[in-house]
Amino acid sequence: MEPAINYCCTCAAPISLRVPPGDSLPRHVCDVCGAIHYRNPRMVVGSLPVYEDRILLCRRAIEPRRGCWTLPAGFMENQETIAEAATRETREEACARIELDDLYTMISVPHINQVHVIYRARLLKAEFAPGEESLEVALFDEASIPWDDIAFRTIAMTLRHFFADRAAGSFGLHVEAIAPPR
Amino acid sequence: MEPAINYCCTCAAPISLRVPPGDSLPRHVCDVCGAIHYRNPRMVVGSLPVYEDRILLCRRAIEPRRGCWTLPAGFMENQETIAEAATRETREEACARIELDDLYTMISVPHINQVHVIYRARLLKAEFAPGEESLEVALFDEASIPWDDIAFRTIAMTLRHFFADRAAGSFGLHVEAIAPPR
Repeated sequence: MEPAINYCCTCAAPISLRVPPGDSLPRHVCDVCGAIHYRNPRMVVGSLPVYEDRILLCRRAIEPRRGCWTLPAGFMENQETIAEAATRETREEACARIELDDLYTMISVPHINQVHVIYRARLLKAEFAPGEESLEVALFDEASIPWDDIAFRTIAMTLRHFFADRAAGSFGLHVEAIAPPR
Repeated sequence: MEPAINYCCTCAAPISLRVPPGDSLPRHVCDVCGAIHYRNPRMVVGSLPVYEDRILLCRRAIEPRRGCWTLPAGFMENQETIAEAATRETREEACARIELDDLYTMISVPHINQVHVIYRARLLKAEFAPGEESLEVALFDEASIPWDDIAFRTIAMTLRHFFADRAAGSFGLHVEAIAPPR
């Protein structure tokens, strides 16, 4: 959850929620200094690291979904590219060195204002370790993927696409969106 | 430019720039209420609408690059998918109805904290008009593209890819990044 906008972060005056001239949606506007405080979707970027026929997963040490397994991924930072974000997150969460292959899944999650972007990648050596946000990092073959303990639906979708595409012999880009869970 | 963060937008206390526990980058942290005010890259999403052999471009009515030509695109909003953002921006800026084809270019622009994402699209009818942020909307064939007056480098790159791919008979996804202009 993002912090509530009650005051202008530039001048500390109270904020109005109103539609600025020329706009069509209500925004957080400062009536004193005129600043408009937009909120936009964030990108969560990561990789699907492959070593021989196995996939590298991380068990989360932090909420949400502490204790569940996921691909190394996290919020893209200012001043970096999506490729840099995917490589950095893999290094931080799994202490793993990868080479990126093609962009693989891009899944909009509009109810939480996120877009999840995963690259296919090659793990260069079977060397990895839990980073600060991971409890455990391990390689899984298709039969041993802990499907009931995957942290996020977008990650489960990405893994399912990967095994289906690998069986079919062709990896395309998957651009999708998910609705809130029922 | 995003507004400066001097005060907490939740409680109006002064903000410190420091590395929170477990993080590795300085963030805007409120020492009174504990809120962390992250800033992350924004996505600019749009379409490359094709009608017969021509491309729909919009001449910008707003800064930056007022008076220059661009593809219909703009900031993705919270609560929408990337496909919805591309369709909405095309409707708003060019009053045009499209059907999306595949995701086409995804270009990181790290020095301004943006990722530009363009879908190929089919313009359903030769019906369009300038929306509030456009001075003019028109169809251009390859020979008449106003190359010297394209608003943004990511848009010029997307158009160059399109004409090259069309000549080659195959449209792939292009994932790239650009550095600041010299």
